[in-house]
Formats: sequence, C-alpha cells, structure tokens
Amino acid sequence: MNYSVYFEQNREKHLEELKQWLSIPSISALSEHKEDINQAASWLADQLTQAGLENVEIIPTKGHPLVYADHLHAPGKPTLLVYGHYDVQPVDPLHLWETPPFEPSIRDHKIYARGATDDKGQVFMHIKAVEAILRQEGQLPVNLKFFIEGEEEISSPSLLAYLSDGAGRLAADAVLISDTALIEKGKPAICTGLRGLCSLEVAVHTANTDLHSGSFGGGVPNALHAMVSLLASLHNDKGEVSVAGFYDDVETLSPAMKAEFAKQDLNEEKLRTDLGLDTLYGEGDYSFVERVGARPTLELNGVYGGFQGEGTKTVIPKEAHAKITCRLVANQNPQDILDKIERHLRTHIQPGARLEVIKGEKANAFNIDPSHPLLQSAADAFERVYGTRAVFTKDGGSIPIVETFSRLLAAPVVLMGFGLPDENLHAPNEHFHLENFDKGLLTIVEYLKAL
Amino acid sequence: MNYSVYFEQNREKHLEELKQWLSIPSISALSEHKEDINQAASWLADQLTQAGLENVEIIPTKGHPLVYADHLHAPGKPTLLVYGHYDVQPVDPLHLWETPPFEPSIRDHKIYARGATDDKGQVFMHIKAVEAILRQEGQLPVNLKFFIEGEEEISSPSLLAYLSDGAGRLAADAVLISDTALIEKGKPAICTGLRGLCSLEVAVHTANTDLHSGSFGGGVPNALHAMVSLLASLHNDKGEVSVAGFYDDVETLSPAMKAEFAKQDLNEEKLRTDLGLDTLYGEGDYSFVERVGARPTLELNGVYGGFQGEGTKTVIPKEAHAKITCRLVANQNPQDILDKIERHLRTHIQPGARLEVIKGEKANAFNIDPSHPLLQSAADAFERVYGTRAVFTKDGGSIPIVETFSRLLAAPVVLMGFGLPDENLHAPNEHFHLENFDKGLLTIVEYLKAL
Repeated sequence: MNYSVYFEQNREKHLEELKQWLSIPSISALSEHKEDINQAASWLADQLTQAGLENVEIIPTKGHPLVYADHLHAPGKPTLLVYGHYDVQPVDPLHLWETPPFEPSIRDHKIYARGATDDKGQVFMHIKAVEAILRQEGQLPVNLKFFIEGEEEISSPSLLAYLSDGAGRLAADAVLISDTALIEKGKPAICTGLRGLCSLEVAVHTANTDLHSGSFGGGVPNALHAMVSLLASLHNDKGEVSVAGFYDDVETLSPAMKAEFAKQDLNEEKLRTDLGLDTLYGEGDYSFVERVGARPTLELNGVYGGFQGEGTKTVIPKEAHAKITCRLVANQNPQDILDKIERHLRTHIQPGARLEVIKGEKANAFNIDPSHPLLQSAADAFERVYGTRAVFTKDGGSIPIVETFSRLLAAPVVLMGFGLPDENLHAPNEHFHLENFDKGLLTIVEYLKAL
Repeated sequence: MNYSVYFEQNREKHLEELKQWLSIPSISALSEHKEDINQAASWLADQLTQAGLENVEIIPTKGHPLVYADHLHAPGKPTLLVYGHYDVQPVDPLHLWETPPFEPSIRDHKIYARGATDDKGQVFMHIKAVEAILRQEGQLPVNLKFFIEGEEEISSPSLLAYLSDGAGRLAADAVLISDTALIEKGKPAICTGLRGLCSLEVAVHTANTDLHSGSFGGGVPNALHAMVSLLASLHNDKGEVSVAGFYDDVETLSPAMKAEFAKQDLNEEKLRTDLGLDTLYGEGDYSFVERVGARPTLELNGVYGGFQGEGTKTVIPKEAHAKITCRLVANQNPQDILDKIERHLRTHIQPGARLEVIKGEKANAFNIDPSHPLLQSAADAFERVYGTRAVFTKDGGSIPIVETFSRLLAAPVVLMGFGLPDENLHAPNEHFHLENFDKGLLTIVEYLKAL
C-alpha cells in the first residue's frame, strides 16, 4: 500500500489519538500541572511502544521526565536522533480562547488546542511516520532514537543536566527536530538559525505598604511611576534597545543573508492586516524577516502593579513587577546581556525606589550552513511532497536545546518544521493546519527513506 | 453620670456593635457586594433608630441606598447635618492583611478592619454620641440630621443625583463630617481644604492576538512598550506632571498658607522611616505637607498587561491597561484636566498602538476659611478633650461631596476627623486607634453641647 493511502485510511484514528494527547494540560511552567506532565509523558511512552520502537523509557529527572526510545536495526546506515517536547505554554488569557485549550477541536481543517503545533502535533507525526514504515515494510531505513522532553518551554534544565552527565546514549549522526514552521501555506522551509534567549524578572519597591493617594499623593514615590520610567528607558523611539553594549556582539547582516531572506518574499502588508496592526514596528532599516531572523530584541512580556479590579482605587502601589525576555543573535552571550541590562536598570532607577532583579533563562543562538547534505536531502523530501523546494530560513524563536545538541553531540541539526507562522503559538487559539499534518507525515517518510 | 463614665461603662458594648458593622463587606466598587451594601445600610438604619433618632429611612437609589434620620426638637438652635459613608474600599492585595479585612480584630488599642477609620468607625461615633446625650439628658442641644451614603468611595453618583433633585430636606446651618485625621496622636486638626479628584482608565491595543516573541519579536509593536513609554511621559524627572496646562489653575502657595502648614511641624524623617522609604519624593521645593495639601498630582493606581504568572512566558501582549487618578487643588476643573490628559496621551502614543481613554470620576477641590465661628467652636471642643487646640489643615484626600454640600446647601462644612494619618486607609491592615474612638465620642458631645 502506498503511504498516501495508508495515512488516509488511518487519518481518523491518528487524529483521535492526537486529541487524547492534546487533552492533557502539560504546562511545564506551572507547578500545579506536575501530574498532567507525568500523564503526558506516560501517554507518549505508550505511543512509542505501540509504534514499534524499542527500549522505551521514561527517565525521571529533578524536573519533568524525559522520554527515550530507539530502533537500531539498520547497520551501516546513519543514526538520527528525533528530538521534540511534550510540554506546552500556559493558556491565559483563558477567556480569549474560542474553544477550551485542552478540549481539542477541529474546525476549517485545523486542530485547535494548546500544543497542537508547538510541539505535540509535530512530535506525534514522527511517531506515526515511523509506525507507518514499520507496519508497511517491517524495518526502518535508518537507525532512529527518540528523545522527547517536558521542559522545552522553561528552557530545558533537566535535559541540560542529563546531557552534561554524558550524552553517549544519544550519539547520532544528525538530530532531527520538527518545532518550526513553513514560510506560509504550501511554502516549506528548513530553519538554519534560531535566536538565543535570556530572561529576567524586575521588581520595584517603595513604601512598606500601599498608600492612600489622597493622604500621600505628591509626597512619596509611586512604585508604578518608577517602573514605567525605568522600563521606558530600555528602548529609544527608533525601536532600538538602549542598553549600553547590547548590540556589541551582533553581526552586521551580510548581502548574502539579505538575499536568502528576500527569497521568503514575505508580504508585509498582508502580515500587518492579518495581525490587525496599524503598522509593523521595529528597528531602523530592516525588513520584518530580517528583524525577526537576524536582529536581537528586548521584550516586556508582563508588567503589573497596583489595582486591576473593576472601578477606581485611589492607591499608591508599594511595588511593581515586570517580566522581560531578550531574543539574541550571532555571538551575543546571554549572561553578558543580562549583566548589561541589570547595569542599565540600576543606573536608571529613580531615587526612592528599590530595585530587585532576578536573572532567569539563558540560551545561545544557533546557526548551521544550508549547504550541508542532510539539509539538502530535507529540502528534496519537501519538494517531493509539497511540489516546491524548501527555502532556508532563520527563525526568530528559540529552541535552547538545539545549540546545545549541535555542540555536545557534534552533529548537524536538521530543523524540518510543519507549523505555520500564524498558528498562535504561545497565544490563545493555538492550532495546527491539517494540510501540514497530512503532508508532514509523507515528508518525514520520504526523508527517512532517502537517507 | 458624666460622659466619660458613661462611655467607659458602655465601651465593650459599643465596640461589639462596631465590629458587627465592620464585618459586613460593603465594598461599593465591586458589584458582587451589592447585598453586603444593603445589609450595611440596614444595620445602620437599625442603629440610628435604637439611638433615638426619628424619621429613619433607607432611601433607595439607582446605586447603593442613602440612609437618613433626624432629631429636630431644639427650636431656635442651629441644625447640623451629619454626613458620612458606610461603603468601603476594595481589600486587595488580600494576602497582605494580618487578620482578614472583614473579621474585626483589636490589637494594641487599635481596631483592625476595612472601614475601621474610613469611615464606618467615625460615623458610628456620631450615632453613639447622640445616643449618649439622649439617654443622659433626654434631649439634644441642637437639631440634627444624619445623612449617610454608600457610594463615597466611588464618587457619590446617587447622592449627587438626589441632591440635584432638590436638597430641601437636607437644609442645615452647617454640615459636620468626620472622615479626616488628626495630625498625629494627641494632635487634633480641623481640615479646611480637600483636594479634588478626576480619574481615567487607559488602554493600549496593538495586534488582534497575543504574539510569540520568537516569531514576531522585533517586528511588531508591543502594547506594554507603548504603554510604559506613554505613562513615563506623564511626569518629568523633577516629579512634576508633564501634561500641558496641568498647573494653569493652581494657586501659588501664599506665605500665610505656608505658615499655617508649618504649624503642623511634621517630622519628615520620622514619616519617611515609618513608611519604610529610602526617601520622600515629589515636586520641587515644597515640604511634604505643602505637596499633599496644596499641590495637584497625577498618580498611576494600577498598570497591567501580559503574563503575570509563575515563570516565563515569551509573549508579546496585544493590550495593556492603566488606571490613573489626579488629586486637584484650587481652581483646577476636573473635566478640563481630563481633557488635557487625553490630549497629552493622544499626542504621545507610539505609532502602531491604538489608544482608548475612558474618563471617570470628577470632583472639585474644597476650601473654607478657618476663622468661621463653627470651626473655632470645633477647635475649642477638641481642646477641652485633648488638652490641645486643633490646628487648621488642608487634607490631600478628596471627599467629593464636601464641595457639593457647601455649594448646594450654602452651608459651612466642618471637617472634624478622628483618624490618624498612618491607619492604612485604602490599603491592607486598615485600623482605627481606640484612643481617638474614646476621645472622639467626648469631643462630639462637647461640640454639640457648645453650639
């Protein structure tokens, strides 16, 4: 039976299985979901076993478990390590979801659920592709290892600890990851770069209690005033980050890179309209693709302090909080950037306000040369299924583990993603387009068989 | 029996009654407390009846009810209208309360509860003072009307509507209000000025959904960036409000006024230490008392947008919100100030962000000449009980109805308050010092008998 027919015949069953997995709220950032995380890992291990993989193991860690499986019966053939993650982002603001985030729902050829595209849906495809080959042919054309973690959305601390204890078991000729996106519908891409990341939390404290704005207003510092002026100082009015030295280790965008980005032929006007924006916005003379692919950022992810309820409360808040992340490129060192930001904050905090800075996640940027044969083969596989050759891109997101894998395993990392850019990753109404579910299964089979 | 003995003998009973009233969470700003509001009004009406007042009536309104009562059996004597409020502020952040806000608790000669000092505790004293005179002497030395509202903390819309329908029933020679504070323990004050108020809510909108900071960061506007730079533009680094024309109708502080303020002899260093502040903070060359009594403010009461949970969320928020109130002085017109602020915001909003401004409360500032005989009598009453003559002050807070009463009833308003400045009005752990409960009862009796 050819694979198109096989996947068509099994489509309903596959989607029902995926829905089961997506129903488990495996939010890694929130400790109350610990049991859900374990359940998602356990579901995954069962699936891997049913697919015909061997040595399936749920590896406990100090955090959320790792899931390993392998199938090593193709002597002389390369060994591929398939990596992905079964954890998902938080779901708030919950009221903006059209259907509940953990009640998967198919509408208009898309499956809606938290984790649908990032990354349960894409991990699931690899399992089903392997299962298909084993059922159809009884053996795999390559040696395969699956290694799926539950802490990707919180920067993979347990996986990093596991790798630092020796990555011998994971030795592979290449790492294969599906956690990125097509350029747009029908236009596949292979990602050759990912931005790094660093995060920090900032708090400003003033009085030892909230104060009445009548009795004290005008005579005492207001933590919110201190916070907004501090945060406003982080950017200039050209959209550039004002932190001294922030751009020191950023490489100038080369003409070759600009040309590669231009191939994406992004319709900025359509993007603007799709996002409901009055205008795109960013640094100087860069295109959107260049800004996101090759320029660093400093983003406020959350700011809060004082009264948030209905009506008015005439209070002078005693504290204010901000959550900040940076996306990093080229040779920017996350620790160095965090230090520079802290220096900026300590310099710019207003008199009478006390600053607290908690540094968080750190990940380097990743880059790979598009001319590598494994990347060229991947582009071929896409071409056979989608009818158009994949473009080599750089993604603005961060998969912190990619740079670590490429460094510790000394292996190329192939980023072969099947999401779409507008699938609301990390936002309400996350979804995954089923055209790419269907074509992705075939593309993975093509790729494995071509190696 | 003299009044000291009477109040001492009845002290436990009085405090138990007050605790009952403070247990009712009559938060006027939150619609889910509608029934509590009604219960607090009903409790009040029963108390007024038991005290011997007549014509007790719960007056329904479109909002929360008004409570009226009178005792008009002193022909030839002046008529005093006692005004106060039985509604209270919201209680968040709840976790900072040492005992629950609606489980009144006496510690260290203070009664802790939301509303203890603002204003249930002070209204309660007027009822008990009247009850004491009626029980001891069978008649009152003046004609009295009680008029207690349930919307003071949300700017008294129903009371204003009631007054605009004709205030004939409330006609009085003077209005007596206890909703202000002593300068400090043992140092009574009569307030001769209150700041006005205006409020607004500001929202900033960018994309039609929250966006992933990896896929979009650097290329789209962030509602929080737009909000913090907008809010930061409202003040300069001297602590002055930067809105054009904001100070146009503010009077220069006269040497006479400066001298009156100086009598308060405020220990700024002690205040700073008590509040746990590194430094007091405010406009230019003014003292704390001058800043709060005679200068206007623009305060951020709440700012929020994006992720507030545990951990990191790499999101670009699509919206951000701020709640703002201004305290106004002298001839500042609240509507004019709101218009000027809106103009400032529309001028300073960054490209790509859409601004929404909702204008809220409006109240004029109030001022009265300290030489008025009714104010001099009040100062005498304080002197007889506290052993020290009251100082004439200006309070930084707003009791919007005071200016309206003085205008519509064409009557002087006597602000005879028994709170203390550090009793956490509008903040966690609000309390009322029982020394002023005890002395306040006697001062009110003295005042009524002296008129």
